[in-house]
Amino acid sequence: MRKEILLTDIINFIKDKLKVIHGNPEGIKVKYLRAPKDVDQITLDWINDGKENIQDRVETSKAMAIIIAWNIVYSESLKNQGKVIIQVENPKLEIARIANEFFVEKKFHGIHHTAVIHPNAVMGENIYIGPNSIIGDCKIGNNVIIFGNVFIYDNVEIHDDVEIHNGVSLGNEATNFIRDIDGQYIRFAHIGKVVIENNVVIGANSVISRGVLENTIIKKGSKIAQLVFIGANNIIGENCLIRPNVMTSGSVSIGAQTIIAPSVTIREHRKVGEGCFIGMGAVVTKDIPNGETWIGNPAKKMVK
Amino acid sequence: MRKEILLTDIINFIKDKLKVIHGNPEGIKVKYLRAPKDVDQITLDWINDGKENIQDRVETSKAMAIIIAWNIVYSESLKNQGKVIIQVENPKLEIARIANEFFVEKKFHGIHHTAVIHPNAVMGENIYIGPNSIIGDCKIGNNVIIFGNVFIYDNVEIHDDVEIHNGVSLGNEATNFIRDIDGQYIRFAHIGKVVIENNVVIGANSVISRGVLENTIIKKGSKIAQLVFIGANNIIGENCLIRPNVMTSGSVSIGAQTIIAPSVTIREHRKVGEGCFIGMGAVVTKDIPNGETWIGNPAKKMVK
Amino acid sequence: MRKEILLTDIINFIKDKLKVIHGNPEGIKVKYLRAPKDVDQITLDWINDGKENIQDRVETSKAMAIIIAWNIVYSESLKNQGKVIIQVENPKLEIARIANEFFVEKKFHGIHHTAVIHPNAVMGENIYIGPNSIIGDCKIGNNVIIFGNVFIYDNVEIHDDVEIHNGVSLGNEATNFIRDIDGQYIRFAHIGKVVIENNVVIGANSVISRGVLENTIIKKGSKIAQLVFIGANNIIGENCLIRPNVMTSGSVSIGAQTIIAPSVTIREHRKVGEGCFIGMGAVVTKDIPNGETWIGNPAKKMVK
Repeated sequence: MRKEILLTDIINFIKDKLKVIHGNPEGIKVKYLRAPKDVDQITLDWINDGKENIQDRVETSKAMAIIIAWNIVYSESLKNQGKVIIQVENPKLEIARIANEFFVEKKFHGIHHTAVIHPNAVMGENIYIGPNSIIGDCKIGNNVIIFGNVFIYDNVEIHDDVEIHNGVSLGNEATNFIRDIDGQYIRFAHIGKVVIENNVVIGANSVISRGVLENTIIKKGSKIAQLVFIGANNIIGENCLIRPNVMTSGSVSIGAQTIIAPSVTIREHRKVGEGCFIGMGAVVTKDIPNGETWIGNPAKKMVK
Repeated sequence: MRKEILLTDIINFIKDKLKVIHGNPEGIKVKYLRAPKDVDQITLDWINDGKENIQDRVETSKAMAIIIAWNIVYSESLKNQGKVIIQVENPKLEIARIANEFFVEKKFHGIHHTAVIHPNAVMGENIYIGPNSIIGDCKIGNNVIIFGNVFIYDNVEIHDDVEIHNGVSLGNEATNFIRDIDGQYIRFAHIGKVVIENNVVIGANSVISRGVLENTIIKKGSKIAQLVFIGANNIIGENCLIRPNVMTSGSVSIGAQTIIAPSVTIREHRKVGEGCFIGMGAVVTKDIPNGETWIGNPAKKMVK
Repeated sequence: MRKEILLTDIINFIKDKLKVIHGNPEGIKVKYLRAPKDVDQITLDWINDGKENIQDRVETSKAMAIIIAWNIVYSESLKNQGKVIIQVENPKLEIARIANEFFVEKKFHGIHHTAVIHPNAVMGENIYIGPNSIIGDCKIGNNVIIFGNVFIYDNVEIHDDVEIHNGVSLGNEATNFIRDIDGQYIRFAHIGKVVIENNVVIGANSVISRGVLENTIIKKGSKIAQLVFIGANNIIGENCLIRPNVMTSGSVSIGAQTIIAPSVTIREHRKVGEGCFIGMGAVVTKDIPNGETWIGNPAKKMVK
């Protein structure tokens, strides 16, 4: 059973972000975040700042408590119904914070007995490792969540507050082979690490290759989605967002705050700047300077 | 050892689809379905309706029993060899049905002792769960086959006659983050379900994200291939066919009977109609009306 | 602790490839292969033949032992420092061989107690099977390494010296369905094998479908990267290199020595010749003759 949350507790939690409150929150309880069509009296409703007819939407919402971005008229009708209207700068962001604090169960802790852990692995405090995950001779920081069926090869370093979803492979050796004179392939061994810095998230079934001689590094705060491949020696900057099915070849570097849309492929040794956006399905064959948007196959700078 | 099957049993199984039978099936046994070059006397042979020279192919097949789409002349030679020629509307379809009934072992049952099942999970009748699969607090219907190394997060609903292949991830939270004022990402928690309706198949290592507030739904009869990513809040209509390496972003909807070729990517919030075909490698950035074929990057309507 | 290696042992190992040695290797020990910026006295350094200023680089390297492609002047300075300069045809290739022989731990052996093996599986000598891998009714040759969380369906044949990384799926049935008259899909059962020939490597989370009536075959020496999908009935020729995120539809054949760059998609039944190169993100809809380079979506022959 989901429990009821006092609206006053929620308001207290976001008190630094409050602009205006209409109505009296005392005694009001909420229980759900819900899609617009499902909103009921015990839903905490919110209206994004881009939406039109905000006054109308507030008037017609079934919820007792609504978070909005622009001020409205606290009409007689709203007053009579006892509704509470809470104005903040960014309702979606505040709802995200509220959800993480009040609506998401934090239940992961401990190492499942079916996980297979290398005896020399070094583990921080407050770690969760899910069923059937396999952890090599690695160093894992504090507050790390590793879901089930994850495979981490030796010589991977995971810092604090990292979250790794099921089926992820960290430290797999990329297919770096050198063709011999008779056409056969000789493996070029990878002896670098994978380093996952603080607050990184890696989505289900993604694969991150270890570096060849240097390390593959995912810098702090970056979020990597599902079914992503990150090549050897990549440096992914801070707070990047890499969406599903992206593929980056070996020795790619990505600057901080860059967003890579789904199904993008990036050629080896390419440097993508900071604050860039690479559009869906782009095939990047050139370096991309800071702040630019590139799209297409082959990718070109978008002219606005 | 594969066992011999009486041709009369097979004919009886497809009796509603028979148009003409030449020759006497009594006493004839078949043991194999085989590639054309490997056909022998105990193979059940068939000829697709698109093939030319059907009379020739029937005359020269080594098989004693052949299923065909168009009638042929039951020649003296065929008669003397005692061959049986069976005419139906769609030989490939009938062979598929026959294979499923007579040639494929149905051996999956029970829950492997290495599977890790949430104590509150609700299970239907006649379920198979393979080794090392991890099942959260879910509801699973009847006659469901879940192969090994599958990971199902909490709050996933699987209806009847569903088949989930190894390495699949259901209910992984998509990388839905909101950028804070200081450039850091705050997770927007996903509290919707994944709902997999009757007769759906999901191929190896595919990932289906849970909905944010509403549910991600794969409607009945749809077949999803391998290494596919289905985003949060997607509605995949009935009897769709989604081929390998497809990626659909969040809040995409796909109408019934639509076929999505390999490596297609679809932008968030796009609506694809019913009975559409999206060609290999297409990058879909617009809505697609019912019945249309779109191809290319960016995808455009194909002009025939 | 990594151990020290006698330079004389390394020289002896590559003695057939030596052209010139300057200096006296007796008593010199090396311990690392390192990125250029990290080279120290006990690193075995090397310089690729493409690099400029080789004399300069040799003079300024901190390493005592350097492998190079072009002869240099063995200067007074090099002589006074006692440095050893070893000239070979292909330094990168020799470093790869040296790394595999001296710098990579060969520690994989045995079958992990959490692996689930079909009782009828036939196993060769000197096999490693990692934790939680699931092996069906298969035939596995000698010196095969299978990492953890691998899933191998029944009726797969793996020859000698094969290496299969974590999360791989072999023998998954492709989504081969036939649409019935009422729009529902009937599965066309796959009864062919997957055959993995000698010296093949398959990267993490890749999926190889079994053949329908014939076999899917990966011929000897081919290297398949991560998150790759190989369709039913594919024949991948000898010594091919298939990079991450590639998708080949059913019944594709690829000639020997062909290289397929990342994120390529190939249409069903297409024949790619020997010694071809298919560029990153290409969508191949036509047959490609021997020795050609094709790029783009849709892929076209590259005009040089």
